[in-house]
Amino acid sequence: MNFKKAFRLQAVAAIIFGCGLLTAGATEPIRTEIPARPAGATDLVGFAAPAIDTVRVGFVGLGMRGSEAVRRFTHVPGSKITAICDIEQSRVDKSAADLSKAGYPIPDTYGGKSDSWKGLCEDPDVDLVYIATDWKNHAPIAIYAMEHGKHVAIEVPAALNLDEIWALINTAESRRLHCMMLENCVYDFFEMNTLNMAQQGLFGELMHVEGSYIHNLADFWDAYWQNWRMDYNSKHRGDVYPTHGMGPACQLLDIHRGDKMNILVAMDTEAVGAPQWIEKKTGKAPESFANGDHTMTMIRTEKGKTIHIQHDVVNPRPYTRMYQLTGTKGFANKYPSEGYAFEPEQLAPGTVPDHQNLNAHGYISDEQRRALTEHYLHPIIREVGEVAKSVGGHGGMDYIMDYRLIYCLRNGLPLDMDVYDLAEWCALAPLSAISIENGSAPVEVPDFTRGAWNKVKGYRHAFTIDTK
Amino acid sequence: MNFKKAFRLQAVAAIIFGCGLLTAGATEPIRTEIPARPAGATDLVGFAAPAIDTVRVGFVGLGMRGSEAVRRFTHVPGSKITAICDIEQSRVDKSAADLSKAGYPIPDTYGGKSDSWKGLCEDPDVDLVYIATDWKNHAPIAIYAMEHGKHVAIEVPAALNLDEIWALINTAESRRLHCMMLENCVYDFFEMNTLNMAQQGLFGELMHVEGSYIHNLADFWDAYWQNWRMDYNSKHRGDVYPTHGMGPACQLLDIHRGDKMNILVAMDTEAVGAPQWIEKKTGKAPESFANGDHTMTMIRTEKGKTIHIQHDVVNPRPYTRMYQLTGTKGFANKYPSEGYAFEPEQLAPGTVPDHQNLNAHGYISDEQRRALTEHYLHPIIREVGEVAKSVGGHGGMDYIMDYRLIYCLRNGLPLDMDVYDLAEWCALAPLSAISIENGSAPVEVPDFTRGAWNKVKGYRHAFTIDTK
Repeated sequence: MNFKKAFRLQAVAAIIFGCGLLTAGATEPIRTEIPARPAGATDLVGFAAPAIDTVRVGFVGLGMRGSEAVRRFTHVPGSKITAICDIEQSRVDKSAADLSKAGYPIPDTYGGKSDSWKGLCEDPDVDLVYIATDWKNHAPIAIYAMEHGKHVAIEVPAALNLDEIWALINTAESRRLHCMMLENCVYDFFEMNTLNMAQQGLFGELMHVEGSYIHNLADFWDAYWQNWRMDYNSKHRGDVYPTHGMGPACQLLDIHRGDKMNILVAMDTEAVGAPQWIEKKTGKAPESFANGDHTMTMIRTEKGKTIHIQHDVVNPRPYTRMYQLTGTKGFANKYPSEGYAFEPEQLAPGTVPDHQNLNAHGYISDEQRRALTEHYLHPIIREVGEVAKSVGGHGGMDYIMDYRLIYCLRNGLPLDMDVYDLAEWCALAPLSAISIENGSAPVEVPDFTRGAWNKVKGYRHAFTIDTK
Repeated sequence: MNFKKAFRLQAVAAIIFGCGLLTAGATEPIRTEIPARPAGATDLVGFAAPAIDTVRVGFVGLGMRGSEAVRRFTHVPGSKITAICDIEQSRVDKSAADLSKAGYPIPDTYGGKSDSWKGLCEDPDVDLVYIATDWKNHAPIAIYAMEHGKHVAIEVPAALNLDEIWALINTAESRRLHCMMLENCVYDFFEMNTLNMAQQGLFGELMHVEGSYIHNLADFWDAYWQNWRMDYNSKHRGDVYPTHGMGPACQLLDIHRGDKMNILVAMDTEAVGAPQWIEKKTGKAPESFANGDHTMTMIRTEKGKTIHIQHDVVNPRPYTRMYQLTGTKGFANKYPSEGYAFEPEQLAPGTVPDHQNLNAHGYISDEQRRALTEHYLHPIIREVGEVAKSVGGHGGMDYIMDYRLIYCLRNGLPLDMDVYDLAEWCALAPLSAISIENGSAPVEVPDFTRGAWNKVKGYRHAFTIDTK
């Protein structure tokens, strides 16, 4: 799967066009190829693997994210750190020493070579391979790990192009293994509680959702191993880091649980900010730089809902993931300040103070918001919110993510995010690039479930007990 | 000009496609027809008419907006209300009585018939026809008025389709008359002051701008004459009310003053909120309803800047025009709370308190924002801001708009907004409809100046004296 194939498919659509089949609304989106499902494989919608009493975790990549994950996992009940790996032996040694100092057993160690991770993937003492390398190694390591019978959890973005995405799906479906992306932002407090309100109908019918990754990385570019992140941006147009916005948006809209994304269109600005940063840093402006300062994508679903996603990592803006939802009966907005608005009849008397003063034209008061949040606290937040805050990791959401991953594996439950979530959220990068490189043409979002998107009605977290 | 023509033009582009001319990035947008300039006419970029000592104004349409405009004009120096008109005679009588009671001369009155406005347009005591009728009558009245030698000022949206837009341009160019849209939101305080900061380089190079009309009209639908507004929404897809977002965005990006919009793509949700409202009101759901709850449009300019525009008048959301700009050195945001962020070197020491604490990752403090606003107060705000607040009209911006219109006419200066602004801002409605009805296909934004978009470098307000 590559851009050339996409172009060829569009040319075919255009020929049909030219032959006179054009009618209002008939413009054909660019289509990418959907490979056939591997022989004998079936979809993984709702998939749960056999329960694992103590989940033995091997970590590949011990940089910024990976070393933090190892630290957090010492607090995750039902898990055991059995193996660690990094291309830099010094990081492996440091992690092992840290664990030992903290009283934990020294895990199996792998390191120093560009394929040291293969040993960890083959390690019989590992049930789950937790991958936090640079972006390019995410999918290859995950595929190799699954081929050796391991469940995998992969940092964002888990896959960079449609070839990698389909390879992950095919491998997971063939091997009947979990392949989850470590999208932490779906576990943030406001997002979780708002999702709970949405699932209980407070916003009426959800019509439109927004998300973004807007984070000025000026202070971070130098921290990435061999400059891989800036290098990647310099070579790729499109929203190259979409999953933090996509995750919460797709969960709200029940994507592949009763609805699916049909088409997207994307647009970017010229690249100005990053080339200026490079020139300031090195004294020399780059000869070319692909990724525009600001990238936008609009998506429409089968049920006529829309998603808007943005990306900007170079301009001086306060951090925002936007996170906004518009329903027929209410509205929520996280940035720059958390706010809710509702049709007055949506909130039962007693839910919030001053109930009679509700007005859909304005945000509810801070006091009302606090009361509402307490009333609709997500059961997972109620269970581990306080522990998560104390362990930390982006304010706690990283811990909740790890906790839930192990909870579901231990109890033989479907994970909160499956391989199709991974596919849908990551696909925005290559699909938005195709749109942009074709003058913002509409591009079809493939049905990564290959026909199973409407089997489950409504996204829900799995629990061993009824949480109602 | 209609959709059918647009479809035919696209089919041609598609045939070219099918014949093998496809290359990367070569997707052709849908093009609409650009009519030839009338014989003998030239463009009106930078156009100024001979000065008029006292501007005699005739008002057509005395409903919500028109009656308020008459009241405001009693406070505008250098103007005289010489004629008033409405289809309802009772409104004419009331306005005349109000003027008389307040001690002003009774103007010429026209009313009671659907074409009463023709008399006002022919009235020799009128220099400027100020049009605040329902949307459908805006352009026909303006064209007739210009044909009778009057300058015109037209409420938003001044034109509903490309035929009307081109007719207004052709008439204005042929007759050498001002044809201004009464886009008040470019005169709001935050927008004016931020524009001033942008023009003085505080945000670096502007890359991306956002605007919207998000206003729950549930309490207003019944107030429109013969239900014209809901009726219009029921029949049209696309962003039917785009100018409040477009105006400030296009002024920031110097549209047709050194840059121009090239293409747009639009997308909407299903229509759910309005049909529900109608069913609740009348007991019967409408058989069809065209306008989606939420509509988005993305626009890319010749210089590689982007604009994002939204429309939602049915869902329960706090009012917002979004108004947001991203530059390479700074950021501004108006809703839900006014905020600025800058690279620290952008603000000279002494401009704001605690200058050393500036940090591009966060908003400046309220105290810094107040100091910055005072330092960069727009000269027009400095001149009439306080008077505007006391006269009122959406907090003062309506008065500033009226004041500037008369100031420029009296002094023989170019108006703040010309007929091409009107065209560009209104065109979003029909062009977004074409995109949506063609599966969010890219649509070319016509160069309404027909070649003159790059004559003037940078948007500026005209003054009789140097305001620096």
